[in-house]
Amino acid sequence: MKYTIGIDVGGTNIKAGIVYKGRVVDKLDIETYAEDGPEICINQIKSAIKKFLYKASAIGIGIAGIIDSKNGVVRYSPNLRGWQDIKLAQILKRRFKKTIKILNDVNAILLGEWVYGAGRGYKNIFLFTLGTGIGGAAVCEGRLVFGANGFAGEFGHTIINFNGPECLCGNYGCLERYVGARYIVELAQKKIKKSNSRLKKYRRLTPKCIAEEAKMGDCVAQEVFKEIGYYIGIGVSNIVNLFDPELMIISGGISRAGRILFEPIRKTVAKRVIGHKYRGVKIIPAKLGDNAGILGSAYFAGVRNFA
Amino acid sequence: MKYTIGIDVGGTNIKAGIVYKGRVVDKLDIETYAEDGPEICINQIKSAIKKFLYKASAIGIGIAGIIDSKNGVVRYSPNLRGWQDIKLAQILKRRFKKTIKILNDVNAILLGEWVYGAGRGYKNIFLFTLGTGIGGAAVCEGRLVFGANGFAGEFGHTIINFNGPECLCGNYGCLERYVGARYIVELAQKKIKKSNSRLKKYRRLTPKCIAEEAKMGDCVAQEVFKEIGYYIGIGVSNIVNLFDPELMIISGGISRAGRILFEPIRKTVAKRVIGHKYRGVKIIPAKLGDNAGILGSAYFAGVRNFA
Repeated sequence: MKYTIGIDVGGTNIKAGIVYKGRVVDKLDIETYAEDGPEICINQIKSAIKKFLYKASAIGIGIAGIIDSKNGVVRYSPNLRGWQDIKLAQILKRRFKKTIKILNDVNAILLGEWVYGAGRGYKNIFLFTLGTGIGGAAVCEGRLVFGANGFAGEFGHTIINFNGPECLCGNYGCLERYVGARYIVELAQKKIKKSNSRLKKYRRLTPKCIAEEAKMGDCVAQEVFKEIGYYIGIGVSNIVNLFDPELMIISGGISRAGRILFEPIRKTVAKRVIGHKYRGVKIIPAKLGDNAGILGSAYFAGVRNFA
Repeated sequence: MKYTIGIDVGGTNIKAGIVYKGRVVDKLDIETYAEDGPEICINQIKSAIKKFLYKASAIGIGIAGIIDSKNGVVRYSPNLRGWQDIKLAQILKRRFKKTIKILNDVNAILLGEWVYGAGRGYKNIFLFTLGTGIGGAAVCEGRLVFGANGFAGEFGHTIINFNGPECLCGNYGCLERYVGARYIVELAQKKIKKSNSRLKKYRRLTPKCIAEEAKMGDCVAQEVFKEIGYYIGIGVSNIVNLFDPELMIISGGISRAGRILFEPIRKTVAKRVIGHKYRGVKIIPAKLGDNAGILGSAYFAGVRNFA
């Protein structure tokens, strides 16, 4: 067993850690200079690596976007300005002379949960993250699904209503347009207007505080979760119909909201999936939190011939 | 190379053939007594097998429904009355003393097209059939996807509009509710009312005759295809977003309609898929027609340790 470095490069934060025997031994978390172009950001990644380099044998990096894992190239990242066809593995290999592997960030999270967390022992899993955006990743028949271009699992931009409102991606009626963090807040803002909801006391609403008030009994906050749970349930129904997983893992901040989130999702899925009673799909929260991406990236780099 | 029997058991017809070196050497096509219960229908399957048994070493059977391929059990079939937990492989093995393998019918069609037809050499494929119902099946990372319960690929019952009309399955806004054969005909009937369309001359409209009139220039028939192509395109966009296949294969009768069908699908996909320009997904018709299910089932039975 060796030490490996796992890095999760997001549009907001870079989380890096050194992993030994499936545990994050030490880690750091810095703000991503996402707007400053690839050179600055690559320097941030290099500094993070340097901190843990002393005994690492391999480095794995999860990045949001279209990642060509085979060739180590970031084809395109919607959250990192100017990243197009960046040969990241080659650049870092030249500098550090170690094994460098890169993959999509949600694939890294799923890999982490699959090997060490909520997905252990399962062969058909779909994981999605609830946050600003809605990412997804799948394990099918015991294999992580990359797809033809490393662009599988775009759950957030699946269409749940072709007549729906316009999404930032230019498409209409995407799941993300209903349950991305900003739209959860928007929904709450609309609902509190004609109410005496406790949510009115917040200067800045977030999905987290809406979840907290819902748990404490605020009716409007509960309504918000009932509605977004329904939308998520529609999206999840499509996944269950298509992938027939035994396990759906929900990751990201509000996945910890508990029953107020999971109940409307499960209820919708039970109604909307064909042959639901023959399937027995479990819908559960992720286990590893922020460590999932670090562990998954490190695992990806440490295992020979993974992809 | 050996002779194998491939059988495609549908709700309307049973198609059986003897396969040698990837070619259907001889075949038969009989009407399914789907309403008469499993015993009668199993006898039909037995008769079909007997016709080709003389030199067959293995028998593969594709059946619509939830198929437990590992244990050879038909868990449930929506098109065959009374089929619940039928140990088909065991029943036939007892009678014929040969290797018997069963799988979902659309999986068999995809397997046929993958090994011998339109999908040769690809590693990420999604195939769907357009007919009375809309079935689907996937190859991910070089493996046929069965899912946890042998129930993956239910494309027809993915939701494209959660506010949509009720489907026969009890759900709302399923793709099948928009583009299943009967709904294509319904759409045409609605559209011809206030027109001088040539479709009015038909006593019984079918998707096939609508396609023919569309090709010959009938505006209403063309509008019908434009609209159903849009709906299919929405469904296909979701598949491309989730599976990132290099190839989408459309199978079933009206997949031969050509440009009038494929153009609106491709146009919708180009608009609706995130990162479409980075993907290069091809959308093409199936190649093998009715033989795909026979070839795929036979292949499934003939290859050791497939699943």
